Amino acid sequence: MTDYVPPLADIRFALDVQAELPELAQLPGYAEATPELVDSVLDEAGRLAAEVLAPLNHSGDQEGSRYDNGVVRSPAGFPEAYARFVEGGWGGLPFDPAHGGQGLPWALATAVQELWNSANLSFALCPLLTQGAVELLEIHGTPLQQRLFLPRLVTGEWTGTMNLTEPQAGSDVGALKTRAVRQGAHYRITGQKIFITWGEHDCAENIIHMVLARLPGAPAGTKGISLFIVPKFLVKDDGSLGARNDLRCVSLESKLGIHASPTCLMAYGDSEGAIGYLVGRENEGMACMFTMMNNARLGVGVQGLAVAERAYQGARTYARDRLQGRAIDGDDPKPVAILQHPDVRRMLTTMRARIEAMRALAYVAAADLDRAKRAPDAAARSRAQARVDLLTPLVKSWLTDGGCEVASTALQVHGGMGFIEETGAAQHYRDARITPIYEGTNGIQALDLIGRKLLRDRGAAARDLFAEIRSSLTELETASDARVSALCDGLGAALKTLEEATDWMLQTGARDLRRAAAGATPYQSALSTLLGGWLLARGAAAAAARLSGDAPDASFLSGKIATARVYVDNILPRAAADAAAATGGAESTLALTDDQL
Amino acid sequence: MTDYVPPLADIRFALDVQAELPELAQLPGYAEATPELVDSVLDEAGRLAAEVLAPLNHSGDQEGSRYDNGVVRSPAGFPEAYARFVEGGWGGLPFDPAHGGQGLPWALATAVQELWNSANLSFALCPLLTQGAVELLEIHGTPLQQRLFLPRLVTGEWTGTMNLTEPQAGSDVGALKTRAVRQGAHYRITGQKIFITWGEHDCAENIIHMVLARLPGAPAGTKGISLFIVPKFLVKDDGSLGARNDLRCVSLESKLGIHASPTCLMAYGDSEGAIGYLVGRENEGMACMFTMMNNARLGVGVQGLAVAERAYQGARTYARDRLQGRAIDGDDPKPVAILQHPDVRRMLTTMRARIEAMRALAYVAAADLDRAKRAPDAAARSRAQARVDLLTPLVKSWLTDGGCEVASTALQVHGGMGFIEETGAAQHYRDARITPIYEGTNGIQALDLIGRKLLRDRGAAARDLFAEIRSSLTELETASDARVSALCDGLGAALKTLEEATDWMLQTGARDLRRAAAGATPYQSALSTLLGGWLLARGAAAAAARLSGDAPDASFLSGKIATARVYVDNILPRAAADAAAATGGAESTLALTDDQL
Repeated sequence: MTDYVPPLADIRFALDVQAELPELAQLPGYAEATPELVDSVLDEAGRLAAEVLAPLNHSGDQEGSRYDNGVVRSPAGFPEAYARFVEGGWGGLPFDPAHGGQGLPWALATAVQELWNSANLSFALCPLLTQGAVELLEIHGTPLQQRLFLPRLVTGEWTGTMNLTEPQAGSDVGALKTRAVRQGAHYRITGQKIFITWGEHDCAENIIHMVLARLPGAPAGTKGISLFIVPKFLVKDDGSLGARNDLRCVSLESKLGIHASPTCLMAYGDSEGAIGYLVGRENEGMACMFTMMNNARLGVGVQGLAVAERAYQGARTYARDRLQGRAIDGDDPKPVAILQHPDVRRMLTTMRARIEAMRALAYVAAADLDRAKRAPDAAARSRAQARVDLLTPLVKSWLTDGGCEVASTALQVHGGMGFIEETGAAQHYRDARITPIYEGTNGIQALDLIGRKLLRDRGAAARDLFAEIRSSLTELETASDARVSALCDGLGAALKTLEEATDWMLQTGARDLRRAAAGATPYQSALSTLLGGWLLARGAAAAAARLSGDAPDASFLSGKIATARVYVDNILPRAAADAAAATGGAESTLALTDDQL
Repeated sequence: MTDYVPPLADIRFALDVQAELPELAQLPGYAEATPELVDSVLDEAGRLAAEVLAPLNHSGDQEGSRYDNGVVRSPAGFPEAYARFVEGGWGGLPFDPAHGGQGLPWALATAVQELWNSANLSFALCPLLTQGAVELLEIHGTPLQQRLFLPRLVTGEWTGTMNLTEPQAGSDVGALKTRAVRQGAHYRITGQKIFITWGEHDCAENIIHMVLARLPGAPAGTKGISLFIVPKFLVKDDGSLGARNDLRCVSLESKLGIHASPTCLMAYGDSEGAIGYLVGRENEGMACMFTMMNNARLGVGVQGLAVAERAYQGARTYARDRLQGRAIDGDDPKPVAILQHPDVRRMLTTMRARIEAMRALAYVAAADLDRAKRAPDAAARSRAQARVDLLTPLVKSWLTDGGCEVASTALQVHGGMGFIEETGAAQHYRDARITPIYEGTNGIQALDLIGRKLLRDRGAAARDLFAEIRSSLTELETASDARVSALCDGLGAALKTLEEATDWMLQTGARDLRRAAAGATPYQSALSTLLGGWLLARGAAAAAARLSGDAPDASFLSGKIATARVYVDNILPRAAADAAAATGGAESTLALTDDQL
């Protein structure tokens, strides 16, 4: 097991340079996000992550959450760790002070989320879902609902869940069958939900389930779905807990990873029906739930980044400590750390480059979320919102695919020891694998990307992004540091490739959606790969500018430039391969008949 | 759990068309490999695989092998299944009839190995290691050793193991410390070995360990290593079992996957030292062991292919059965099988294309092994041996990386169910992950490729291969079926890219081995990707030629052409990306300093 060392310098760099946190702090309401406060938040969060959450990661995996007749016990240490989390007020970081939050930027909250997830992915899922419930109620809840539920959800004293999936309704949420019947001021809910993360546990005194259900006579599909608050314990008018609601956890799933996180089969309404409170209007539940889902999609992307960082740290430690073989050049018979072997070094540097690009993309998306919420100018808000919408599927898919890839490479660095559970590399590999699946599979993200984010606005948001990249590259080309300007050739070519692929996607999508959809996943990957390179190049330029002074962190800053180079040389070429597959490969992937598969 | 359906038509096609089995059958000693016999071998093996081994795959994973005070119990059903395997004479397929084998081509034995491994990877490891021991003794054993050990190893009544690794000696085998001291006609062995696959079990009455150890005063490193036969039970002159040797299994590893396969920590010589018999000469053990390792490396590559095929079948079945969502085009509100969704179809067709390319490469390498052993002409034998040597790291690395990739995509097709252990997709994902590690990590394969296989002969074997590809493409360009000739553009460009990358590797390797080594892994991948495409194009051409007649299997044959197209459009573009990383990325991956990682 490797200790987790919060990469605060890297995080701070990405926040300042790529997410432009100092500018975000100028937005109305964010005045408190001073450099000093940001430092202190990151320091404190890093300490909790490293000292309390990280040590429970492996033991939580080995022990797992356990089910006993409706009761779920989280692994040893989890309830106490969660109490520390609540005590620190960490749940409320980005939320409205009116509901007990601290009103800090989402960009900062995203960085803090990375820390929780690197430390303990299973643990961090619980606050992630609670956060989704909070945002949902902040936007769609009635004043009464906000008064009753928000304060305790914001502190984390109560936790939230998201109940969409049923056996016959996975990616197709519209196929759900859970029923809701009106009864005076509330509804009675009956049905079963599967894959409910932290659906039942012993870390909080109440669990607030956000449940999608269908009213009698509701239209078919997603247009007939309503959203309900269904608390485990009913909440009295004074906010105190009332009777146990008619819902229970029936069983836990036996999963590949995230063993500490209980994945529940939930039954609502075994007796008279669980009491639920409508959120938003009848039959408009999907739109409300999407608030929660978009939030959660960015959060799941951050999980991919986070597990990659943790896995990378484990591999780096192993590669520094493990002596094996001799240096490939020279005649020194002394064994060297495997870090010195070029192939191992390639694995570490390319992992690092991918991680830094993923971090930059996640934080940039979060910064746009802040602008979309807080920019004084409506046009700026709407532009930022369009950018977040465009980036959300990229963050979700590219960071989770990257999490799996990095976790796999990190395991490989360990050689045979990577396959043995005690080193922890295998756990990261197992844990990471859920992230490309939940909150909308990465294939669903790709369809979202080409459908809602590209075809719907006829490429406007994408073109806005490309224009920004182009102008940014034009600036970088004239950078005085030749290492920075040299990055632009490859990036300019990749930009052109993506512009062409985007044109192809727009034209093809307009006349043959099926064919466009067949290319959506590699297109999504290609676009993300370009963005990652662009953001690292921006980082390299900023590092070079700081270096020209008398920087005490010269090695760190040079590392940023060198890492951008690793990316452009080793990872960026995939953008062309993916774009070729997206545009040139879509047709052939559809050509095989059912019996030829 | 999905049933396993042996893909006999695909296997037969790859054997006939890419591995050119009909020509192999003309080689001296292979006359028995008639089409009828080949059919009947594949049929029978397929039956045993599907009916006996495959049903034990999931239960074996759940139960695992268990350790109890030196005794290892394999999962329920394994001993009986192994008895069936022995009864069928399957272990002796490719071996010398003089030792009880059937003397059939390695190409056929490789196809049969695919079946065992698809059915049950953990199970198939046991015969795979036995096979390595047989080949080792066939080549390096004394007549007495051959008489005593070979017959029972060939039948599989006894099984073999490979004891290289020690805690401080993994990839660097030369660092091993196990000691051997001469005592009359035998040696006494003392030391510990780790990661010994099927090192102890209850499926066979004796286990013949092939153990690397060091004699007193032996030179340091790999030049001071000797190889010993160390049987669990000593074997008397009449072949009957004698006393228990001084060796034992100390514990089993807790692993990410292949739970049914016991991975043993072995202790030799707790008391007076385990009795061992020298194979080959003193201090020349590594060369002998390489016989076993090269054999095993091809076998591990086949494991990657095999688990990919099994995972693919699971995903295909799930995608056919699972109704979710509506067709993307048209207005039909009826749910469709997810197989009909373009993104799922892309996953299935690209998996299929990759699998067929992997299969072709493995069988072609095995066919070259047959030529290297049996071609009447010495020059042909030596050319074939150079080809096998070149292909071995490619088969090992590309097929095992592909196994992991396909298993991951197959899991993704299952959505949330893929993460639940009961569907079996997660097992394939876990099991596959060992294959890029053992028998030499894929990074070690890449160094072998550029060092021993490329730089040592200054690119002669690679150029011979490129010339064959070029002449093959020239032929395909004139194919009357336009679908075949259309494959050549992309392949020709990829060939040129690889020729250039190979030149770069030769030049760079001659003056800066460190830099060449930093590009070795992506080079290895790029070269394999080209070969896969070339072999599928050859398959497409053969399919087109058969189609021009009145083929009853027209759909199957058209599928081969369509699959080659999927490969060229979707997978082949990676060759350029990998080649760019290999040649253009090597320098930057070495540029970061230790503290910048």
